[in-house]
Amino acid sequence: MLWVIGMVRTVVLGLGMVGTIFSVGLESIKMGEIEPHGVPLANIELGIDIDEIEIVGSFDVDARKVGQTLYDVARGFYGMEEVPGTLKNVRVYPGISINLVDDLFPVKNISEDYQEALDKVYELLKRLKPDVIIDVTTTQEGEVYGDWSKYEEDVLDGVAAPSQIYAYLALRYAQEVRPIAYINLIPTPVANSPAIVEAAEKYGALILGDDGATGATPLTADLLEHLRERSRRVYSIAQFNIGGNTDFLALLDDRRNRAKRFTKSSVVQDILGYDVPNYIRPTGYLEPLGDKKFVAMHIMYKSFNGAVDEIIVNMRINDSPALAGYMVDLARLGKLALDAGLCGTVYEINAFYMKKPAPLGSKNIARILAYHKLLKLIEDIRIRNMIREEPLVE
Amino acid sequence: MLWVIGMVRTVVLGLGMVGTIFSVGLESIKMGEIEPHGVPLANIELGIDIDEIEIVGSFDVDARKVGQTLYDVARGFYGMEEVPGTLKNVRVYPGISINLVDDLFPVKNISEDYQEALDKVYELLKRLKPDVIIDVTTTQEGEVYGDWSKYEEDVLDGVAAPSQIYAYLALRYAQEVRPIAYINLIPTPVANSPAIVEAAEKYGALILGDDGATGATPLTADLLEHLRERSRRVYSIAQFNIGGNTDFLALLDDRRNRAKRFTKSSVVQDILGYDVPNYIRPTGYLEPLGDKKFVAMHIMYKSFNGAVDEIIVNMRINDSPALAGYMVDLARLGKLALDAGLCGTVYEINAFYMKKPAPLGSKNIARILAYHKLLKLIEDIRIRNMIREEPLVE
Amino acid sequence: MLWVIGMVRTVVLGLGMVGTIFSVGLESIKMGEIEPHGVPLANIELGIDIDEIEIVGSFDVDARKVGQTLYDVARGFYGMEEVPGTLKNVRVYPGISINLVDDLFPVKNISEDYQEALDKVYELLKRLKPDVIIDVTTTQEGEVYGDWSKYEEDVLDGVAAPSQIYAYLALRYAQEVRPIAYINLIPTPVANSPAIVEAAEKYGALILGDDGATGATPLTADLLEHLRERSRRVYSIAQFNIGGNTDFLALLDDRRNRAKRFTKSSVVQDILGYDVPNYIRPTGYLEPLGDKKFVAMHIMYKSFNGAVDEIIVNMRINDSPALAGYMVDLARLGKLALDAGLCGTVYEINAFYMKKPAPLGSKNIARILAYHKLLKLIEDIRIRNMIREEPLVE
Amino acid sequence: MLWVIGMVRTVVLGLGMVGTIFSVGLESIKMGEIEPHGVPLANIELGIDIDEIEIVGSFDVDARKVGQTLYDVARGFYGMEEVPGTLKNVRVYPGISINLVDDLFPVKNISEDYQEALDKVYELLKRLKPDVIIDVTTTQEGEVYGDWSKYEEDVLDGVAAPSQIYAYLALRYAQEVRPIAYINLIPTPVANSPAIVEAAEKYGALILGDDGATGATPLTADLLEHLRERSRRVYSIAQFNIGGNTDFLALLDDRRNRAKRFTKSSVVQDILGYDVPNYIRPTGYLEPLGDKKFVAMHIMYKSFNGAVDEIIVNMRINDSPALAGYMVDLARLGKLALDAGLCGTVYEINAFYMKKPAPLGSKNIARILAYHKLLKLIEDIRIRNMIREEPLVE
Repeated sequence: MLWVIGMVRTVVLGLGMVGTIFSVGLESIKMGEIEPHGVPLANIELGIDIDEIEIVGSFDVDARKVGQTLYDVARGFYGMEEVPGTLKNVRVYPGISINLVDDLFPVKNISEDYQEALDKVYELLKRLKPDVIIDVTTTQEGEVYGDWSKYEEDVLDGVAAPSQIYAYLALRYAQEVRPIAYINLIPTPVANSPAIVEAAEKYGALILGDDGATGATPLTADLLEHLRERSRRVYSIAQFNIGGNTDFLALLDDRRNRAKRFTKSSVVQDILGYDVPNYIRPTGYLEPLGDKKFVAMHIMYKSFNGAVDEIIVNMRINDSPALAGYMVDLARLGKLALDAGLCGTVYEINAFYMKKPAPLGSKNIARILAYHKLLKLIEDIRIRNMIREEPLVE
Repeated sequence: MLWVIGMVRTVVLGLGMVGTIFSVGLESIKMGEIEPHGVPLANIELGIDIDEIEIVGSFDVDARKVGQTLYDVARGFYGMEEVPGTLKNVRVYPGISINLVDDLFPVKNISEDYQEALDKVYELLKRLKPDVIIDVTTTQEGEVYGDWSKYEEDVLDGVAAPSQIYAYLALRYAQEVRPIAYINLIPTPVANSPAIVEAAEKYGALILGDDGATGATPLTADLLEHLRERSRRVYSIAQFNIGGNTDFLALLDDRRNRAKRFTKSSVVQDILGYDVPNYIRPTGYLEPLGDKKFVAMHIMYKSFNGAVDEIIVNMRINDSPALAGYMVDLARLGKLALDAGLCGTVYEINAFYMKKPAPLGSKNIARILAYHKLLKLIEDIRIRNMIREEPLVE
Repeated sequence: MLWVIGMVRTVVLGLGMVGTIFSVGLESIKMGEIEPHGVPLANIELGIDIDEIEIVGSFDVDARKVGQTLYDVARGFYGMEEVPGTLKNVRVYPGISINLVDDLFPVKNISEDYQEALDKVYELLKRLKPDVIIDVTTTQEGEVYGDWSKYEEDVLDGVAAPSQIYAYLALRYAQEVRPIAYINLIPTPVANSPAIVEAAEKYGALILGDDGATGATPLTADLLEHLRERSRRVYSIAQFNIGGNTDFLALLDDRRNRAKRFTKSSVVQDILGYDVPNYIRPTGYLEPLGDKKFVAMHIMYKSFNGAVDEIIVNMRINDSPALAGYMVDLARLGKLALDAGLCGTVYEINAFYMKKPAPLGSKNIARILAYHKLLKLIEDIRIRNMIREEPLVE
Repeated sequence: MLWVIGMVRTVVLGLGMVGTIFSVGLESIKMGEIEPHGVPLANIELGIDIDEIEIVGSFDVDARKVGQTLYDVARGFYGMEEVPGTLKNVRVYPGISINLVDDLFPVKNISEDYQEALDKVYELLKRLKPDVIIDVTTTQEGEVYGDWSKYEEDVLDGVAAPSQIYAYLALRYAQEVRPIAYINLIPTPVANSPAIVEAAEKYGALILGDDGATGATPLTADLLEHLRERSRRVYSIAQFNIGGNTDFLALLDDRRNRAKRFTKSSVVQDILGYDVPNYIRPTGYLEPLGDKKFVAMHIMYKSFNGAVDEIIVNMRINDSPALAGYMVDLARLGKLALDAGLCGTVYEINAFYMKKPAPLGSKNIARILAYHKLLKLIEDIRIRNMIREEPLVE
């Protein structure tokens, strides 16, 4: 029998800007209409082409989107002009919300009854048969679960965060149906919950995460590495972020902001190796900025012989497309790693793409270094695959 | 007999801000008065401590400095307040100028007669017995020498650039006295002249260079690598530099500016792998900025699904201390490499410290990657040294 | 009898960085040691010279400063090197704190008993005989008082803000001793309390304020006027401020931050004439920045034919000296206005120097316009004074 | 008979981006399709509405535009999407080029023979009957003419700059046909040539100019005024400009760049009243930036008590629409001033809109002040007009 990599059946959790742009961009690349700019591994031979990613469904709890197709959401809700027709075949199913987003939009859950909601989502998963689930739901605060029984209890009681509930269903799916990769791109601790990762190891699932690192954070990581490698002593770091998309709006809520702040400032100590006074966090919401956020950063450091230098960085970056581009890689990497027999979590993937790379307690490293670690992993997997294939040649 | 690394006898060519701050900073570190911030490898075990660097002499052609001690120049000429007394023992000898700097300051050469000047400088070198010569003279335009006889002819006729003339004397010194490392931190093609590097290989000398990369250029390299690794398509790069030190003043002269522009923009194509419209060069001279230059950079690129992002970087950086900090490493690395039997040039060192890393035709790579290549080289040398030492233990 | 303007006897409330730098800078200018840079009207003929300002005393509640001389505080507490000896003659008296600053430093009041504290401070004022009191105490939240009896009651009960309590004593002084100008440079509504201004009119006192406008706010005012005069339609304004002085530290306290936020964003609507989404406020505290804050501002606007432009401003400004420089003007303007018989408050002065120019309900205007209104006022006063003098000529 | 202000018949010289956007934007405003953002006096009652401006023709020497309609140029050449149909009625006539732009595009003059070219352009002017000519041709170097006979000679010999040649024809038109306003928005000294302005006075023409001030220059003027009014001592000013439109391309030519540099840096001394080292000029050309230039500015100054502050400004501004918006005012102001009987030049108009406000030797003033001077002028004219009308009512 030949070693074959088939389609990457992908489910998108949360059809906000990120999920929508991922869908539109992916289909446009597949149709040859745009270049795969912003897809980090676009030019790296993975063994799985971008063409092989197939979005099979999406979950959301925004009543204005539920029941529509991805095409409708992209055109109608987000007013995009060029939307590939293939998205007419992909549906938005109602999900599970736990009342965390009622202040942001009208909510529609898959069922009023929570237990029934769990079952229904699970049934849908069984029907959609995903290889990969990518979580780009709204930022929610959540607990780090070290203990499985506590986690299971909270999920069943509906007090865990939605992402953790979906991950629970994915684990069950891995156990009962087939291997799956759950990729969490929001700050909620999923891959950073040891209980979840351990279960994944047991059931042959992959949990990647947490919190996609696309904007100022990975750039800061590389800037700090740049300074560290010159033994420049950093005095202070200020980094302001302001934007007008739902993500920033959501952060007006204190609980959500706290979740984010935590993941953002850990990078400093991790990379420099010493503690530096810093102020790094999403700072505010300004509706007219839309999805294109404004970032301002100030770094002051001591150079040779007592000289004091300063770097100021200002950015205008489109938040959602940056993360959407990562999804094109992560869907493929999730499948690649599953096919290679990996389970639990994979630091080499997380370290490049995530603000808080799992497993819990892992350090942030400069992204330029993480990238090369990732290339090494891919090479190792591909070599291993080649060896596995060999007997077939005979 | 034990394998011993002794002192690193160092000669500084050019006692401008850089050479002076190197001298003052080095002695202050040796006396424990300041931390070695800005010395990239300060915390890396090299086998040669910073304490082992000894400045044995300096050459300059500025009549206001020649004949004085380094202490006098630091206090009197540059008005520094905390100058270690040890610099009272180091002298500034007159060098060779070839009339390129007459517009900048009153010139005093070691001799009015050029042939005699060559001989006198060489005699001085033999007396000072350096292991390492570090070239931080004023930027001069110079030719790339592929052919030894053309090079030798130009040196003897006094039409080569001063740095190339000093390098010639260093090669002769390597041949007749003992191994030496010539480290060129200005844009003049010394290490990028194949004729010079080949001769170095023959005579057991090391030529490192060219053009120390301390400010915006290495940061740009890492920023571009950061973008490349995300497949972001760069549209354009603008990078302005303005400062008030002699280096910027010198660039008002077109010939010198041309030398610099060349080394600065090659980084873009090298790292991105495609050509991008760019404007990267020292832009002007503003005396009140002094040694602390202002850098403004604008990068525009395409991200996923056609989104256009922008990064703006503004820096206020002290030019001279940054380069002076590198000298503390390079003096030690030069000696380390010589002791390890390396000769010609060493890309792994050049790639991290230089804007135009030799040998000729080498590419610029991201500095974060170059740094890790450098660590690998150091590790390899140290392992080799340990093996070499082993039989001696018996 | 000749019309003579004598000394401007000045009391400083709060001997933080601002009050201290004012004292040191003023004396240094009087001794001819520094130029009056940063004193807006330094080159305008006011009729009162900088030399005529005399600091007669200072109040503070920081136990580490109380009882010392201004000289001691400047040298010992703030570590300044060049401190004029004349400050050895000026003392720091204990003031009144109302427990608002206990979290910031050890507090020492003039008396444990509040009523006695009031009496003692008043007695001191009578002894010091100030013409001008300048309030640069720590930011405190306070109520706008429209009604005199409510104000008086709160003062006597010790529930008004300290600045409002001092202002009450100043009014009593005006009534019983002689005219006085109370100049409030912190956000607490003193000059914006109609009850206080009305009483000042009755008793011949002047109340100027509130909240000195030195940094990003007045610059924003002028930038917005610049855009308004070109009919550019502003979409959004983000303005971040971060610093490491006591003022920023104090703002970590929510009540104080709220006081500040209010005064900062009103400028937008006042100048543009329409409402613009904005985020303008002190953003955080970073100790290593010290008194030199970092400001980042982003303004996006629509130009002709639908073009969208952006302006980004980054500033590194020393907070305290900027305000201290204003004090040199305000002490003189306070005396000048009193001598000219003005009482209540004077919008023409407030509009240039204050973030929240009194009287209550007044608009912020572009500072460049306010400056010219101020020059007009000064000219009017001087003409009036000349006319008053005329009969003396006979 | 009633005093009536009719249409403002306008001829546009040079149909580059600026002229085209002016035409498109003006017609779109007249049709009510866009708001008059970026038209400084849009909300000021001038007595002449935007609706009254009528573009009657345009001159250009770019062979790819000549003979087409403004509609064709906007859609075909510049690829604009929303172009009002009314521009189908306005033609691009061939003009006069004097071989200065051959390196930029294929040239087509109105005649190969220069004398005939002059006559033909004049005949066309007589036919088009403009009230106002607005010059937005490509930047050319030109001489300041103090002497009429030298000027006339250079025009007739074809060695004056094209703008000066067109101005000559406008003067003849004023003399022989009717009053006209010639508004020069490029750096060539037209309104700064005393010989031209004196002739205008004699013949009842108006010459306004030179060099429209839309981007960094007027903002710098207001920033410097802001600093001056606080007696902050400016140390140095750096201002870089880089863009990708024809204007920047043209500046690669040294002669054109010199013309521009001159007009840009005079603002510093004019406003501050003292000389400051500065580097203010168009810095380079980067095609991908298109019409949206990048500006970086650095200002360092001394504040109170020796504190040193810094302001950095970065801008992304659409060059052409900004200037096009001014044209909507200037066409109306030209007519208004003519109707009010003004001739020669009018400093109050130039001071706000121009980088080098005529008459020759006039100072740059802060734009916020210039704006208010302009409003005063408009008010004066309107009052005068009302008085003039009065007897007619009877």
